[in-house]
Amino acid sequence: MRVDGRERLQLRPIHIETGYLMHPEGSVLISVGNTKVICTASIEERVPPFMRGEGKGWITAEYSMLPRATETRNIRESSKGKVTGRTMEIQRLIGRALRAIVDLSSLGERTVWIDCDVIQADGGTRTASITGAFVAMAIALNRLGEKKGFKFPITDYLAATSVGILKNNETVLDLNYAEDSKALVDMNIVMTGNGEFVELQGTGEESTFSYQQLQDLLGAAQEGLMELFEHQKSALGEEITSKIEARRKK
Amino acid sequence: MRVDGRERLQLRPIHIETGYLMHPEGSVLISVGNTKVICTASIEERVPPFMRGEGKGWITAEYSMLPRATETRNIRESSKGKVTGRTMEIQRLIGRALRAIVDLSSLGERTVWIDCDVIQADGGTRTASITGAFVAMAIALNRLGEKKGFKFPITDYLAATSVGILKNNETVLDLNYAEDSKALVDMNIVMTGNGEFVELQGTGEESTFSYQQLQDLLGAAQEGLMELFEHQKSALGEEITSKIEARRKK
Amino acid sequence: MRVDGRERLQLRPIHIETGYLMHPEGSVLISVGNTKVICTASIEERVPPFMRGEGKGWITAEYSMLPRATETRNIRESSKGKVTGRTMEIQRLIGRALRAIVDLSSLGERTVWIDCDVIQADGGTRTASITGAFVAMAIALNRLGEKKGFKFPITDYLAATSVGILKNNETVLDLNYAEDSKALVDMNIVMTGNGEFVELQGTGEESTFSYQQLQDLLGAAQEGLMELFEHQKSALGEEITSKIEARRKK
Amino acid sequence: MRVDGRERLQLRPIHIETGYLMHPEGSVLISVGNTKVICTASIEERVPPFMRGEGKGWITAEYSMLPRATETRNIRESSKGKVTGRTMEIQRLIGRALRAIVDLSSLGERTVWIDCDVIQADGGTRTASITGAFVAMAIALNRLGEKKGFKFPITDYLAATSVGILKNNETVLDLNYAEDSKALVDMNIVMTGNGEFVELQGTGEESTFSYQQLQDLLGAAQEGLMELFEHQKSALGEEITSKIEARRKK
Amino acid sequence: MRVDGRERLQLRPIHIETGYLMHPEGSVLISVGNTKVICTASIEERVPPFMRGEGKGWITAEYSMLPRATETRNIRESSKGKVTGRTMEIQRLIGRALRAIVDLSSLGERTVWIDCDVIQADGGTRTASITGAFVAMAIALNRLGEKKGFKFPITDYLAATSVGILKNNETVLDLNYAEDSKALVDMNIVMTGNGEFVELQGTGEESTFSYQQLQDLLGAAQEGLMELFEHQKSALGEEITSKIEARRKK
Amino acid sequence: MRVDGRERLQLRPIHIETGYLMHPEGSVLISVGNTKVICTASIEERVPPFMRGEGKGWITAEYSMLPRATETRNIRESSKGKVTGRTMEIQRLIGRALRAIVDLSSLGERTVWIDCDVIQADGGTRTASITGAFVAMAIALNRLGEKKGFKFPITDYLAATSVGILKNNETVLDLNYAEDSKALVDMNIVMTGNGEFVELQGTGEESTFSYQQLQDLLGAAQEGLMELFEHQKSALGEEITSKIEARRKK
Repeated sequence: MRVDGRERLQLRPIHIETGYLMHPEGSVLISVGNTKVICTASIEERVPPFMRGEGKGWITAEYSMLPRATETRNIRESSKGKVTGRTMEIQRLIGRALRAIVDLSSLGERTVWIDCDVIQADGGTRTASITGAFVAMAIALNRLGEKKGFKFPITDYLAATSVGILKNNETVLDLNYAEDSKALVDMNIVMTGNGEFVELQGTGEESTFSYQQLQDLLGAAQEGLMELFEHQKSALGEEITSKIEARRKK
Repeated sequence: MRVDGRERLQLRPIHIETGYLMHPEGSVLISVGNTKVICTASIEERVPPFMRGEGKGWITAEYSMLPRATETRNIRESSKGKVTGRTMEIQRLIGRALRAIVDLSSLGERTVWIDCDVIQADGGTRTASITGAFVAMAIALNRLGEKKGFKFPITDYLAATSVGILKNNETVLDLNYAEDSKALVDMNIVMTGNGEFVELQGTGEESTFSYQQLQDLLGAAQEGLMELFEHQKSALGEEITSKIEARRKK
Repeated sequence: MRVDGRERLQLRPIHIETGYLMHPEGSVLISVGNTKVICTASIEERVPPFMRGEGKGWITAEYSMLPRATETRNIRESSKGKVTGRTMEIQRLIGRALRAIVDLSSLGERTVWIDCDVIQADGGTRTASITGAFVAMAIALNRLGEKKGFKFPITDYLAATSVGILKNNETVLDLNYAEDSKALVDMNIVMTGNGEFVELQGTGEESTFSYQQLQDLLGAAQEGLMELFEHQKSALGEEITSKIEARRKK
Repeated sequence: MRVDGRERLQLRPIHIETGYLMHPEGSVLISVGNTKVICTASIEERVPPFMRGEGKGWITAEYSMLPRATETRNIRESSKGKVTGRTMEIQRLIGRALRAIVDLSSLGERTVWIDCDVIQADGGTRTASITGAFVAMAIALNRLGEKKGFKFPITDYLAATSVGILKNNETVLDLNYAEDSKALVDMNIVMTGNGEFVELQGTGEESTFSYQQLQDLLGAAQEGLMELFEHQKSALGEEITSKIEARRKK
Repeated sequence: MRVDGRERLQLRPIHIETGYLMHPEGSVLISVGNTKVICTASIEERVPPFMRGEGKGWITAEYSMLPRATETRNIRESSKGKVTGRTMEIQRLIGRALRAIVDLSSLGERTVWIDCDVIQADGGTRTASITGAFVAMAIALNRLGEKKGFKFPITDYLAATSVGILKNNETVLDLNYAEDSKALVDMNIVMTGNGEFVELQGTGEESTFSYQQLQDLLGAAQEGLMELFEHQKSALGEEITSKIEARRKK
Repeated sequence: MRVDGRERLQLRPIHIETGYLMHPEGSVLISVGNTKVICTASIEERVPPFMRGEGKGWITAEYSMLPRATETRNIRESSKGKVTGRTMEIQRLIGRALRAIVDLSSLGERTVWIDCDVIQADGGTRTASITGAFVAMAIALNRLGEKKGFKFPITDYLAATSVGILKNNETVLDLNYAEDSKALVDMNIVMTGNGEFVELQGTGEESTFSYQQLQDLLGAAQEGLMELFEHQKSALGEEITSKIEARRKK
């Protein structure tokens, strides 16, 4: 039994509240246990300079934490005057992951801006951000497609979770902060609804892991991700899920 | 009748949800109509260098908006690498206002960090921040006083609101964004429970105002502030309000 | 009697030297007692991006202090790599105040850049900056109007002063640094020649003030401001004052 | 056959020149085909603040490219005034990877600074950096251990390489820039001499990959890594390799 | 005859007003023709970290221009968030030059901060800064020596001027802006009262100069510098000049 | 005899390896004793904004050191977020020097970007950078002239060296770091193949120098520079040297 009473391969309770904010084209508040992230999607009618003239869209993400999302107060990155390496790494991951399931040609020369703001952190903020951002983006693209005249561009579901190996050598799913800070191995997996990998990041924290352990971790992740896709479908509702199914390769 | 159906001197609906986040010593989500701000209070066991050795505490505030708190997406200040003038002005205002109703000697050499993060903006974000931050701070100081061994240092209530003169020359209370962006005169007032001014900032927006108009604005603000104090008292509950009453000059 | 021998409601000696620098379109050295500020006005033939295409002008201000304008040396903001909150607040105030008495449509798509550089500081640098900047701007706009083909756009005089409540509860006018640093209440008032308020910023410094005290402060300020307008008229001379009178609403 | 004539699972020619610079405690020039990186290791007699008092050492890495390491000139990060997200991600990866095969307690409260400066880039700069940095660090730690009085702290070999899936669905080892920029999937693998994973980062570039493809990629990487360890051993020589063997878990 | 009516080897009119500001230990307003610089000297009772424990003092300089010191408005370096290369070069030059005529051991572990703020620029701002800063520093060191208990540490006079070769191949002394911006060769010379060089910086501006031309330039500079020393002596007065003479090597 | 066994007026061994990197249009590795600098030249098909429309080219330089080019590790300027004064000064010097021997009209509206990256430092990095950058630039301009349709624009050779006066009052040529850090006087001289000065920077390091010493320094430099031109000619080869000779004024 784990520190919060869960089974080894049990996710924390998931809630995805859509329409959380009034201004963004798409917004959700996602809770994964005590981790809470506001994810919004905004559409800009142009692409960054390096993409211009290619007839394709772009997706970019920003990630931030409130100073007291964490146990002790963090200095704001705006006060420091620069963004940390950790934040940049997460931002790049979120953007890259979402681009894998969007047909950028359908989107046309538009940028989807994803903002993930962690209001409460208890481990797994980057994976919760990806899972929530997918929903916010799908809502925004559904809402704007007809108005702006582009085809619904999402080609599959996308969610993320973490798996890890604890000090007792147990493989566990969806680590909370207490587990994550002591894990020997930490792996984040981003997967499509079809079970294909988009991103796989496994790290031995001053430790290493064997080929066999890797297989166990991948199996554990797969279970959790299938459950996350179901939460996304419920949150998105009939209209959007049927559009995704229509574009999905079987 | 105003754009959202209110009377001239009617506040928007106010909600103050305490204990909003799990980590901070004090936290609230305050809603003033559609304006929503997460206010947290954190205590640090030291003061900034310029205060050291004086045996007194300090209160400092930071303010930020989520990129899509607003109608169109704002660039994050962490991405810009610097904080705008508007943000700095608001941060200084919040800190200064709260210091007026705290006995810094009772607090001892500690810093109260106030964080106001606007998650949805519809006008009046700085005044909502002050009103909410007061509650978060009172909760934090009540919780920590005994543990850290200092006397409850808050000497009165503190709330803020805006008043303004619209294009039709009507004086109104608690402007929303649509009203604020077109007002001829905009005034923010921070007041104590005893009806004393802490801060008064009146600005003619490419306009001016007479002595008589100033008196009308002050009267309108007073009405709204009295109502705000009642909301704060409900949110704070018996234990804390009685401690404030005990220190209040009559 | 005050620390420098003045009466309660007496301004310090005022000197406004016009044509102080050879390059700017308008420049003054203003002295308010020992406070000395070089104010210049420059005209740029375009407006910032957010104003383009509206057919209106803009006025923006920058404020700085020499490192040894003060008793102890301040670190230059250029060395720090960023501008402090105090500087930004003052810059925004100066620009906002000047815009209130300029008909921006008459100005056309031009920007007036105001630079206020404090070479010696003894309290009241922001109000001296506004009073001096008004004169520099009027000279620049008078000089360039015919050449550039726009109508003289200034619609009234504009000056600023400070009032405050000292520890002995006396209300005083035009605080010097020694008074300002110990005042209970500090208020800056920007007013037009017609006696209308443009900006009113009153702050209790870890203190508060009552409605009655506010009335006393406003009365004191009014006296000082009337005198400042006379100094401005002398400095500007016949030609410019008559142009201002011509546009002034009576 | 690949664009440069290699077999699918063939590394590019590897050269590791030790003692490349006169000042650093350890330095190498590593060439992996046309990719050339100067790796240096420096020892500082203290650890960063967050590590103080724990009796353990730390390893941190910086990575940079000369502006014309690449086909078109890149703007220097020192001119931009900030480090890009890509650079931060690589720096964090190098440091994390090296920490996995160093017994930080043996090192004592010292910091190893790794600098990887790419002088010519043709794909695989981050993996070449890790492979080269390992050698530079081992030389530095061997040289300084006796002098500074710490036990040789390296517990195994460490090398990195890339594998990927090209547009023709072929799995290849050690991608050059031409291959990397068009690959569907790109995976970097950091492994110890014992064949354990330290870091696994697989990314679908606007694409995805299946469980079976992952297994193929891992197999390909393993072949290349075994060859890289042999190059490291030759470069390090008898004395250092025997020290590593002595600490290696079998 | 030159553009402003001067002879080839004639300086512009020089004025050095001492005691220009009330706060600094030493301050002057130096005018060299239309170039006007406020130079101040401040003493700090410690040295920078790299000098600590050596029992010697340090001299450091900062240089800045008001935005409208020049014909067209310059962006403030504080607004840009960084100091330009030109400013840094001048700051380093001023500090280095002054250190050559100060016995840093006599000064003890103190820092002299020199601030040169150009309020009006018409060529030669860096040489005017050095000439004026010398006077401000001598006044400050004279005033503070007895109080702080150190021996007067200045060992000789120090002044600077420019010479150049114009398009007509004439060698001229003390170039104004119009001359400087078109000169083929521009040379700044810093010299001691004994006629020794401290700094010599000659630059062909997209041009070159011969050995013979160099000799002509040096001769021209010498003439101007002797005159500048006389202005410095008048400004400093009997007490300080006799202290300098006492320490001067003959 | 000097610390490294050289005669007073003897250069250190010089090697200039051309074609050092595969991507830049021109690149060299220059070694002056233990000082090693990678110099590259890149051509951009536009000029900076302040040069546009003049039909002339521009040359700009950047200079940097690897962190462990020096005895103790330097903090990277990209990590600091700003470029030091020393770096800016050297960058400006390199660009200015090269512009003196290039006919910018022949170049047309193009920018030559020079990058000098010091990989090992032992004194004289700025002069080695200029000497090496000249060769890299000549190769790049020769290679691109025909392709881009501009006339070979280099009008003479250009090299730089240092001379100085040591503590024993000896004048020496080409100071290494040990000599440079203790020299009384340090002078950098940039000269054309025709023996004309381009730049002359002599500095007394808390010291001064006489007119006679200056003459000795100039003589010493001339000897070294003539030798450096021969090294440049060998490195450039027949084709390029004959193009330079063709444009050289005799």
